[in-house]
Amino acid sequence: MNPQNTTIRNTVPSSVSDIVLLAKRLEIDELKHLQSRAHLVGVISHMVHALQAERGASSIYIASDGKRFEETRLKLVGESESVQRLLRDLILEESCASASSNARIVALLAWVLLGLDALSDLRARITSLRLSGSESVAAFSRIIAGLIALIFEVADASVDPDISRLLVSLFNLVEGKEFAGQERAVGALHFGAGRCDGPLKERLLYLIDAQARSFEVFLQFADASLHRKWAVMENEDYTAELLRLRELLRAAPPGAVLDPALSDPWFACCSNRITAIWSIQRDLVEALQQHCATLIAKAEEALLDSEGLLRSLREAQPPRADAVDRFFDPHLAVEQSLSFAAAAPESSQRPRSLIELLQAQSRHLADMEAELTSAKRALAERKVIERAKGVIMVRFGLSEDEAYTRMRKASMDRNMRLVDMAEFLLAKAIPF
Amino acid sequence: MNPQNTTIRNTVPSSVSDIVLLAKRLEIDELKHLQSRAHLVGVISHMVHALQAERGASSIYIASDGKRFEETRLKLVGESESVQRLLRDLILEESCASASSNARIVALLAWVLLGLDALSDLRARITSLRLSGSESVAAFSRIIAGLIALIFEVADASVDPDISRLLVSLFNLVEGKEFAGQERAVGALHFGAGRCDGPLKERLLYLIDAQARSFEVFLQFADASLHRKWAVMENEDYTAELLRLRELLRAAPPGAVLDPALSDPWFACCSNRITAIWSIQRDLVEALQQHCATLIAKAEEALLDSEGLLRSLREAQPPRADAVDRFFDPHLAVEQSLSFAAAAPESSQRPRSLIELLQAQSRHLADMEAELTSAKRALAERKVIERAKGVIMVRFGLSEDEAYTRMRKASMDRNMRLVDMAEFLLAKAIPF
Repeated sequence: MNPQNTTIRNTVPSSVSDIVLLAKRLEIDELKHLQSRAHLVGVISHMVHALQAERGASSIYIASDGKRFEETRLKLVGESESVQRLLRDLILEESCASASSNARIVALLAWVLLGLDALSDLRARITSLRLSGSESVAAFSRIIAGLIALIFEVADASVDPDISRLLVSLFNLVEGKEFAGQERAVGALHFGAGRCDGPLKERLLYLIDAQARSFEVFLQFADASLHRKWAVMENEDYTAELLRLRELLRAAPPGAVLDPALSDPWFACCSNRITAIWSIQRDLVEALQQHCATLIAKAEEALLDSEGLLRSLREAQPPRADAVDRFFDPHLAVEQSLSFAAAAPESSQRPRSLIELLQAQSRHLADMEAELTSAKRALAERKVIERAKGVIMVRFGLSEDEAYTRMRKASMDRNMRLVDMAEFLLAKAIPF
Repeated sequence: MNPQNTTIRNTVPSSVSDIVLLAKRLEIDELKHLQSRAHLVGVISHMVHALQAERGASSIYIASDGKRFEETRLKLVGESESVQRLLRDLILEESCASASSNARIVALLAWVLLGLDALSDLRARITSLRLSGSESVAAFSRIIAGLIALIFEVADASVDPDISRLLVSLFNLVEGKEFAGQERAVGALHFGAGRCDGPLKERLLYLIDAQARSFEVFLQFADASLHRKWAVMENEDYTAELLRLRELLRAAPPGAVLDPALSDPWFACCSNRITAIWSIQRDLVEALQQHCATLIAKAEEALLDSEGLLRSLREAQPPRADAVDRFFDPHLAVEQSLSFAAAAPESSQRPRSLIELLQAQSRHLADMEAELTSAKRALAERKVIERAKGVIMVRFGLSEDEAYTRMRKASMDRNMRLVDMAEFLLAKAIPF
């Protein structure tokens, strides 16, 4: 992928200056790798979108015994397939990229590839109507879940705070959009049946709640322009219509009659909203890619600066004497810039010696790490909640929704944050 | 370092099986790299020990105007130098090792190398008595602090929970031992002066407190055999003697007369205890290296198993049909084994298909991550405390001890854990 890597890393440095430059080059390498992952994530979120559309069309095709949506479905399959080919190549490339030595990402790449490779067979079964509607939905949803999990892992592996924030934001947006898509499907089934069904209603309430949670985190890490776009969407008529229909569904007791004529407006307002979310998602992916490019340009400039500085130091004076005097200078608050303790305000002056260069770099790295911690907290909390949910599912033989609802209720009863409840559960393994 | 890496990573895989095997090979690569880092950490902690001894002898040499400890010091310098040569080579090698793309580690490696390269000049100045005792101590302590920070970063970068626990334990032991060494030096000065000095006493109390904190975390992550060795040390006469002398220093008000004849017993009991800690430290380094070897052997066995399984699958049936049927099998609780959600109990059966192999691997990775989180919490809390300390130092122009003492007092006054106080301070930036 990056033939430069091999060269840089296989040459053993012989001095401190060499290592300093090596560190800068490694930073650039890492940013470039991050950029290629950002590209991968862009294609993944496009694939999710394409599969969601294909899933919807396939459901209608199956439900109508192949009478409706035959052409629409074929068109959408064609679109899915073109993204799919691109994604397959990227996955194979990424799985062997030099810096991707993250076992969790590689395992998920394999998993997703397995799903992509099974798609053509899935489509053949749908075309010949050898699959029920719910089987088809479950199959597409499984691949989509894998793709979304991959975005999560890439976000979790990012080492740049801004990129992390953008990725955390994107992960939550894509996930929220998937919940919105499932809400559309379940609601359509619900209205279509003409009668309120207890389990379907439960599922719908779960999807609405989970969606709100995802979008909340998305907004927490989104910039002002995305907030504006989001606010516009929230003020559209279709959002008002969706809220009205949701209230109607929420208020209906199990067994109550529902007007089947509401299926179409339900589907329409959900679809309009999903389209708006998709547009926001593309903006976010665009912002992510631009930010990577900016960071790389900055890092390359910093490398040139450092090379210049080190050259001028070599020419100006014997570097060793300089290093000795400065290394032991008692007035230098060095301990503070040693990795984690850095807190001194960043100097606006350019560094003038090797020591100052190292100090500036350590300070920069420590600042980045502190920022990174806050972006990653959202992911860490998420993992704790998912893990606790898994424990409850296994222990009580519950579905994902049920496990979540149970944990959610327990946390509200005890007036605890959901994540604290989850940690408590994992730590004490208490029954509840 | 590891020429195998390049080969594995530059071959683009073409199927899911390829990626699965690649993931296993990456895991082995990563473990081997961890092993070489464990070796580096062993040499670093040896270097810390050698420099501590050299620092002590140099102080006596300078204080006696070159009349005492001339030979002892030269012998210790010789020992330091032999570890130093080994360490220098390892640092240069590690800084370009393929997987070390961790900018913080590389920056610290450069910093430590700068210190090591300045050592010969430092020694020349000490030999010709061109340095005061406190300058000499400060210089050695600075290099030691860099070496200890490097152990911290290596621990923080480890991806295996058991190795992380061992490294967290080792970091705290080495750091506690450094506090113990400084306590010995400050106490010797204190008794030697024959009179209780306010600032020296403050420093001594800080060092005793900091030491207790480090050893507590060391014990938290240490195994039973180290606990036993520790308990034996705590029951020795020299520990009782140290506790008695500490009480005496603690009780003395500033200005009170101290018996200078207590210098020698103070130095003796401190030294005996430090020697015992050094022996425990060597055991811990040994355990670390053995554990790495065990993990590599296990991972290599798992790779052979997987290769065998994949070969038999290829021979037994067309792999694609198998993948399709199994990927969409609704009875498979797949979502649970997707990265972070894994919680199902590990199956004792060997996996029989590609899907099961992937599931087993994901489950294994998720379990590892959950364990890793708990080992790393100790490091994360440590970073928060250090960062808050740095903020206080800069804002109030305080020394490290003073900042720590202030934060500690504030946390006790408010009945908060130290780390919670530190987080509070960083979040609100409150003055106190």
